[in-house]
Amino acid sequence: MKFTVNRLEFIKSLTDVQRAISTKTTIPILTGLKLKLEAKGLTLTGSDADISIETFIPAEDDKAQLQVEEPGQVVLTARIFSEIIKKLPEDTLTLEVTENYQTEILSGTASFSIKGLNAENYPHLPEINAEDTLNLESDILKQIIGQTVIAVSTQESRPILTGVHLAIKNGQLSAVATDSHRLSQRKIAINVADSVTYDIIIPGKSLSELSKMIGEDVAQVEVRISENQVLFEFNNTTFYSRLLEGNYPDTDRLIPKDSDTEIDFNASEFLASIERASLLSHAGQNNVVKLALNTENQKATIYSNSPEIGNVEEELKFQKLAGNDIEISFNPDYMKDALRSFGQSTITISFNAPLRPFTLVPSEDQEHFIQLITPVRTY
Amino acid sequence: MKFTVNRLEFIKSLTDVQRAISTKTTIPILTGLKLKLEAKGLTLTGSDADISIETFIPAEDDKAQLQVEEPGQVVLTARIFSEIIKKLPEDTLTLEVTENYQTEILSGTASFSIKGLNAENYPHLPEINAEDTLNLESDILKQIIGQTVIAVSTQESRPILTGVHLAIKNGQLSAVATDSHRLSQRKIAINVADSVTYDIIIPGKSLSELSKMIGEDVAQVEVRISENQVLFEFNNTTFYSRLLEGNYPDTDRLIPKDSDTEIDFNASEFLASIERASLLSHAGQNNVVKLALNTENQKATIYSNSPEIGNVEEELKFQKLAGNDIEISFNPDYMKDALRSFGQSTITISFNAPLRPFTLVPSEDQEHFIQLITPVRTY
Repeated sequence: MKFTVNRLEFIKSLTDVQRAISTKTTIPILTGLKLKLEAKGLTLTGSDADISIETFIPAEDDKAQLQVEEPGQVVLTARIFSEIIKKLPEDTLTLEVTENYQTEILSGTASFSIKGLNAENYPHLPEINAEDTLNLESDILKQIIGQTVIAVSTQESRPILTGVHLAIKNGQLSAVATDSHRLSQRKIAINVADSVTYDIIIPGKSLSELSKMIGEDVAQVEVRISENQVLFEFNNTTFYSRLLEGNYPDTDRLIPKDSDTEIDFNASEFLASIERASLLSHAGQNNVVKLALNTENQKATIYSNSPEIGNVEEELKFQKLAGNDIEISFNPDYMKDALRSFGQSTITISFNAPLRPFTLVPSEDQEHFIQLITPVRTY
Repeated sequence: MKFTVNRLEFIKSLTDVQRAISTKTTIPILTGLKLKLEAKGLTLTGSDADISIETFIPAEDDKAQLQVEEPGQVVLTARIFSEIIKKLPEDTLTLEVTENYQTEILSGTASFSIKGLNAENYPHLPEINAEDTLNLESDILKQIIGQTVIAVSTQESRPILTGVHLAIKNGQLSAVATDSHRLSQRKIAINVADSVTYDIIIPGKSLSELSKMIGEDVAQVEVRISENQVLFEFNNTTFYSRLLEGNYPDTDRLIPKDSDTEIDFNASEFLASIERASLLSHAGQNNVVKLALNTENQKATIYSNSPEIGNVEEELKFQKLAGNDIEISFNPDYMKDALRSFGQSTITISFNAPLRPFTLVPSEDQEHFIQLITPVRTY
């Protein structure tokens, strides 16, 4: 195996593939990066068994200027290989695999020789023969991911909750995540036949990594779903994730249908107030802030108290307040995550009772995005 | 005590003073920030016993818009106080100390109340009645610090070596640091009477912190030295550091007077080569690279080898090579630190024998700056 390639283009592919490579894996060969050189181009593969990423540098790519001298394949320790490539002196590099997978890397007058491994021992990536492909705009996909992964559970006690539940039915995609303290649900109409139905759970971690990889230059992402894998394709990159097995809980019944008190906030202004209040709640033992709404006086006030440090009180600006008076306590970190997902828009928060979950929706479009937070009981 | 001040200007002073405040101190009151309000202005003080920093906001400062309503003083927990100030909603803030040092912080509709401490219990800063003051250009001072602190020892086994030795004599300032494996020495003519002599050792950590605080807007720094303290004054900031006690070793005798082999490199090009070679030396057990100079063939080559990973070899570009052939092994991290202190300039490296220290000097001005590195014995 021998090729020459533009170093900066090679680094781009390498960086993408490295997202899937963990240094902590128990399968030694997975700390490696697989390079496979064919006449048509060079494929880089990285995997941590949950996520696998493949990038392809075509032989005809103008920027990469790949020169295929001798096809072949090898696995190289990803961390040290990538450090070497990043520090090479020239704009191009030549890589050659000699006896016993020993690999020479040449650039200018610098020459590295590192040990390689037999690529035959690298695990095979899953084959996905899905007939249907979904096309999603990359902006929308990144938005859906950003809005839902915040609510996935980070605890392995109920593995199913570490994923985002994606359902496609009647031309609508619905994504929902909950860690049982809060829930985030996003719905969107997509351009597929009504007959296309899917019901899958994708690990939140996979979606976060995927989102980071989709750059500004990607317009569309092609999605293929098989029984236990999902595949995302864009540019010359393929991203595989395993699916979580099991039944996702029925989340529809958790969302209250009506409310007793409603308040409209600018999401980013309310976020700033919550951040101030949480300074003291974080310093104390109970990470709780209290919101008091008084409809008659048209007053909304937030409080937090940490006996060791002090307390904070702030009267909030709001757009509209109606319904019954209420005092409700909640974890400000959940509120911060939820508010960030609304950006600058105006939101409506709807309450029932001090111990019943409350919801946040965009005031303009209440149907397609909802965040739910369970309050904290305080005495 | 009560005042109103521009929040951003207050944050600047606060940030400077916080450099001296450690959260890990064993003296609880030193986790606090002292605020002292007088008719002439507000003084902020932070200290970790080794370093103390005072900043002053004058009542007449246009930007700070300080309004002194009632003089007084208080000590507030620095970390939470600074977080609160940074998150306040408006451009100004009002701070008022009420009963039992309870402190109210108001900005817009947000109001914080935190516990304060009696400022009478805060340690007094040392009084420095030095008659002589030295004036140093801030650029020169930062350069001297940057070039010497790299070589101070980080080990407490010989505390004296954790400092930089500053000597002033015959109108010349000399700064030297060594951790016994390497040495850095800078000399510079300064504008003081020949009769002014000082011989002090300043902790390297103090100098690093001082250097970070001296911004672009500072032209001159005033230095006062007393028996066990040194004081640096600039703008409205005063920086105190304790001095290390004891005799600094005689370093002049460590610097070789002649050499058998000399090579001239561009410092930044040589640095890039050393960084490549050190990728493999770091990965292995011995952090060593080898430099081989062959005068007859006019070749300079660097090698590193890590049995577990692989090896690297690079032929180096240089400007001039003369003298005896030599092969020498050294710790690449010492070499990297030394080379960085020369920036883009051309340097001359002078060798005697494989186990004798070698020196680096700027090719243009060999008298005023020298770095010395002790080689590593390899078999």
